[in-house]
Amino acid sequence: MNRKEFRDLATPAEAREAIDSLALEAGIERVPLAEARGRVLVARLDAELDVPGFDRASLDGYALRARDTFGADEADPARLAVVGEVHAGEEPDVALEEGQAAEISTGAVMPDGADAMVPVERTDMDQEGDDVLVRTAVAPGDNVMFAGADVAAGERALGPGTQITPRDIGLLSALGVGEVPVRAKPRVGIVSTGDELVRPGEDLASERGEIYDVNSYTIAAGVEDAGGEAVLYPHAGDEQDEMERILREAADECDLVLSSGSTSASAVDVIYRVIEEQGELLLHGVSVKPGKPMLIGRLDNSAYVGLPGYPVSAMMVFRTFVAPAISEAAGLPEPASATVTGRLARQERYEEGRHRLMPVGLVTDGDGETLVYPVDKGSGATTSLADADGVVEVGPETDYLEAGEPVTATLFSPDVRPPTLFAVGEDDPTVSRLLDGLENPRYLSVGTRPGLRRLREGVPDVAVVAGPLEADVETTELDRWEREWGLVVRPGNPDEIEGLADLVDRDLQFVNRTTDSGLRSSLDAAVAALADDRGTTRRELTDAIDGYDLGLRAHESPARKVIAGDADAGLGLRETADRLDLGFVPVGEQPVCVLANPDRTAKDGVRELEAALTDV
Amino acid sequence: MNRKEFRDLATPAEAREAIDSLALEAGIERVPLAEARGRVLVARLDAELDVPGFDRASLDGYALRARDTFGADEADPARLAVVGEVHAGEEPDVALEEGQAAEISTGAVMPDGADAMVPVERTDMDQEGDDVLVRTAVAPGDNVMFAGADVAAGERALGPGTQITPRDIGLLSALGVGEVPVRAKPRVGIVSTGDELVRPGEDLASERGEIYDVNSYTIAAGVEDAGGEAVLYPHAGDEQDEMERILREAADECDLVLSSGSTSASAVDVIYRVIEEQGELLLHGVSVKPGKPMLIGRLDNSAYVGLPGYPVSAMMVFRTFVAPAISEAAGLPEPASATVTGRLARQERYEEGRHRLMPVGLVTDGDGETLVYPVDKGSGATTSLADADGVVEVGPETDYLEAGEPVTATLFSPDVRPPTLFAVGEDDPTVSRLLDGLENPRYLSVGTRPGLRRLREGVPDVAVVAGPLEADVETTELDRWEREWGLVVRPGNPDEIEGLADLVDRDLQFVNRTTDSGLRSSLDAAVAALADDRGTTRRELTDAIDGYDLGLRAHESPARKVIAGDADAGLGLRETADRLDLGFVPVGEQPVCVLANPDRTAKDGVRELEAALTDV
Repeated sequence: MNRKEFRDLATPAEAREAIDSLALEAGIERVPLAEARGRVLVARLDAELDVPGFDRASLDGYALRARDTFGADEADPARLAVVGEVHAGEEPDVALEEGQAAEISTGAVMPDGADAMVPVERTDMDQEGDDVLVRTAVAPGDNVMFAGADVAAGERALGPGTQITPRDIGLLSALGVGEVPVRAKPRVGIVSTGDELVRPGEDLASERGEIYDVNSYTIAAGVEDAGGEAVLYPHAGDEQDEMERILREAADECDLVLSSGSTSASAVDVIYRVIEEQGELLLHGVSVKPGKPMLIGRLDNSAYVGLPGYPVSAMMVFRTFVAPAISEAAGLPEPASATVTGRLARQERYEEGRHRLMPVGLVTDGDGETLVYPVDKGSGATTSLADADGVVEVGPETDYLEAGEPVTATLFSPDVRPPTLFAVGEDDPTVSRLLDGLENPRYLSVGTRPGLRRLREGVPDVAVVAGPLEADVETTELDRWEREWGLVVRPGNPDEIEGLADLVDRDLQFVNRTTDSGLRSSLDAAVAALADDRGTTRRELTDAIDGYDLGLRAHESPARKVIAGDADAGLGLRETADRLDLGFVPVGEQPVCVLANPDRTAKDGVRELEAALTDV
Repeated sequence: MNRKEFRDLATPAEAREAIDSLALEAGIERVPLAEARGRVLVARLDAELDVPGFDRASLDGYALRARDTFGADEADPARLAVVGEVHAGEEPDVALEEGQAAEISTGAVMPDGADAMVPVERTDMDQEGDDVLVRTAVAPGDNVMFAGADVAAGERALGPGTQITPRDIGLLSALGVGEVPVRAKPRVGIVSTGDELVRPGEDLASERGEIYDVNSYTIAAGVEDAGGEAVLYPHAGDEQDEMERILREAADECDLVLSSGSTSASAVDVIYRVIEEQGELLLHGVSVKPGKPMLIGRLDNSAYVGLPGYPVSAMMVFRTFVAPAISEAAGLPEPASATVTGRLARQERYEEGRHRLMPVGLVTDGDGETLVYPVDKGSGATTSLADADGVVEVGPETDYLEAGEPVTATLFSPDVRPPTLFAVGEDDPTVSRLLDGLENPRYLSVGTRPGLRRLREGVPDVAVVAGPLEADVETTELDRWEREWGLVVRPGNPDEIEGLADLVDRDLQFVNRTTDSGLRSSLDAAVAALADDRGTTRRELTDAIDGYDLGLRAHESPARKVIAGDADAGLGLRETADRLDLGFVPVGEQPVCVLANPDRTAKDGVRELEAALTDV
């Protein structure tokens, strides 16, 4: 493959410029008024008619000639002959002359000859019912809304670029506008490539290395958030002709084609060749992290941007470079600024001279100040973004940020509300249920040891710890209870496993948890006790247990290995075994403690958690 | 009609309570992932699988047993036999033993026996190509993303009540979730009643007092903004059986029925009867202004709220009482607070002891401070809301607010951006075109005199004035030009009108503008000059002109009267006549001046306007 060389990575500014040079605008469309909310008016709209379209009575009462009431008052009412009546939605069939009045209802057309009206409360009918006595003087125009008083024909109603609100729809309705000319949404085709990708909802063969396609739906949702219309194309796999066909079909149908999903070099080579042959490659590689492998170019008559394959990189590059261009093409105003300034929770070092897009979470400390902490589970992780609130950008010249340094985070959207409670630690079903009842909590299942470490570092509000660990940090215990742990085995325990000793003495396949977890600490302690009983070393026993050293991070993974037939026993909770209809061999009970940072106990989210714990 | 008596108006708090007592929740629905953006998760979602689902190579290189590399370095590489290769999306067909390695690509499944990998950059192939020389030591787990490292099976993924963002869609994709259980949107049926109402886009017979139905589409858009699903029902007219049938059909199909639109007493009576007979009336009349005539109750198995007929009242009551209940039923979090505090631009007096919902506009003064000014064109006006930015609530105990008093306005939505330029005054086509090029300006066509008055009061940034008026206020003139005015006549001028004298001397029907307008000032001056010429009084001449005293506020209305055949000549601009393909008889030229408040000339919006004026 003979790739055109881009020796230097482009700067973020150059990447923005390249994207700006692509025309993403999609033209004009006319939408019915009922679908106009949120759309962007493409041209000025002047009133084509007066609103109201006629001189209109503002109240129930009598239409009359103001001059006939001059001098009238309670003591000396003016007497007028009632010559007709006018209701709303009717054409008046009377015209008033001097000394005459007509009964009129709210919203009705003022009859010819009338120039004012008097509300019924200021009048009396005379005995015969033919005349009305008006107990007040009115001036011309009193209680009449004249034609055009609300909006006058020819008046500027809405300017171009207006993003239509319900209130604007009120104005458009009043003007009788049934269809509104709006900026068409840019159509954005999303092509994902890679043999290993499977659409969510379909079956996954993990043993073959298949993974769910994360980028397609995520980027599609991002496109819609930005004001575009997302079109998902079928997976292209790694077959070259098919990939080229789908890319060109998307280019034919869309204003912008985004490819994403594959990390395979061969797929990138095909895309590269298609863009070079059928379009133009403007830029390859941008000096940002994450996100370096980015392509910008044209394909047939469409714009083209190739996003990195890793979900976090793809989303960060999309947000930073592509979303603003889509919003601009959609005619949307720049979104209301949503930035939060806070202190960096821990120091950060950067290796390379690249512009850095750092996903961050926000947490309020005990003084109500915002702490900003980097969320980084590696560029292959999908949770890095779901667990973050926004992004801090760090320039290429910065290689070090001190803890406590003030930084400004741009929220993912103005609607983002940082969590009311930030908790970390052991995965526990009781805790999870409690969190369900709280408003907007965040929980990171990092395990007991890392949870305690983070609590010590001062970032989370609360850590949930389990097992025989000593907390080496000052904490406030919010609650404590016991949970039963042991061996999760096949339904009905067909191997008749009775306890740890069977794992040592028999030929059974075991699945452990990582040393991060509180369950593992309790298991280690139980094994040590068994070793004491037998007068041997802990190591002797663990070497005898097949699988002891292979720990899974996942809470339910050992149980699931048992279900899959890959193991005879796994470390787990009785609650997990019950929930998954598996057998359970109890080994012990361990404490679960909910520990708060003492500075945060007055924080609303912590108090809510405490109240929820008390209610259990 | 025997209405149940509600002697006292309910307080706003009572109205909220009554609405809260209606159950608007719509249950649960399952939506495909592609449609889940913005929806609200109805239950906690735990991971059903590990992500990644297998131990995954993070880079291109060699999978191996870490132990085999211990001690290796650049000088003394470890030599391993390459026994196979694994690509992404493939099931490994090798298992490693001591001293062996397998070529592996990014994202591929780690083969059995391997516990680490080394990137290709740290290796060399030996001469024969059968062995790889590893120039570094790696630890178990290096460059491998273990199964469940991103999300572990059983881990809490998203909590109930989560409003799904693109980032959450990333997580859901990774978990393979194809369908998401979300809170169904409350269905809100909108029934408008009243014989006089016409749907926008249809023809309007103003002479019969018909008006466009403003409330239906406006409230529907408000329902959707609040997170509900709006269902528009056909107009019920004033026919009782039909109205009852439609109300009950809506109640059958929706969670909430809103009626709105009619101000006719008989329609209200029918609704009243239907609610009383088929449901329950909880509350009638609330002590707020605007909005007093509000009904809250139940109809069959649906909730029912009757909104006032006037658009501003309907929308204010909807926003204040109904929208929050819809959002809550939709499970949406309370929207990010969007309030702005500023100084009240002019004093306000209140007559009654009602809670007041005051639509207000916002404008930034020369010091960057926010001024808040009430927007009130009367409750029948539709522009009151389109020209406003938010609402100030004033309690019933307040009957007076001083100018300069600090008040807090709640923006109509967090997206509302107050205008960058606030201009008022004469309607002028050149000004209107200039405004099209500006970012988010606001222009109120109030005419020349009121425009000057408002500039004097210190609220707008700029006033556009036309005609022979003297500005009695210190202003900065941004620009000035001449425009041609005269008589707009039928196409081709079939009546051969030559000037003002014809209006006086011949039997012609004329249409004038109101005295607010600069055009009228120039016309008055021209008539005075003609009177001088003829040695008579101005009054003598104006009495001789049929229609001189009837002025229309509307910029184009006189021309439109000519088109409609209701007049032979109207006061207007050459530009208007040209645009509407009418004849034009020039009478004179008049100056148009754009005058700025001298304190605001440094304001961005004013400078942009000045630049645009210069560019013309």
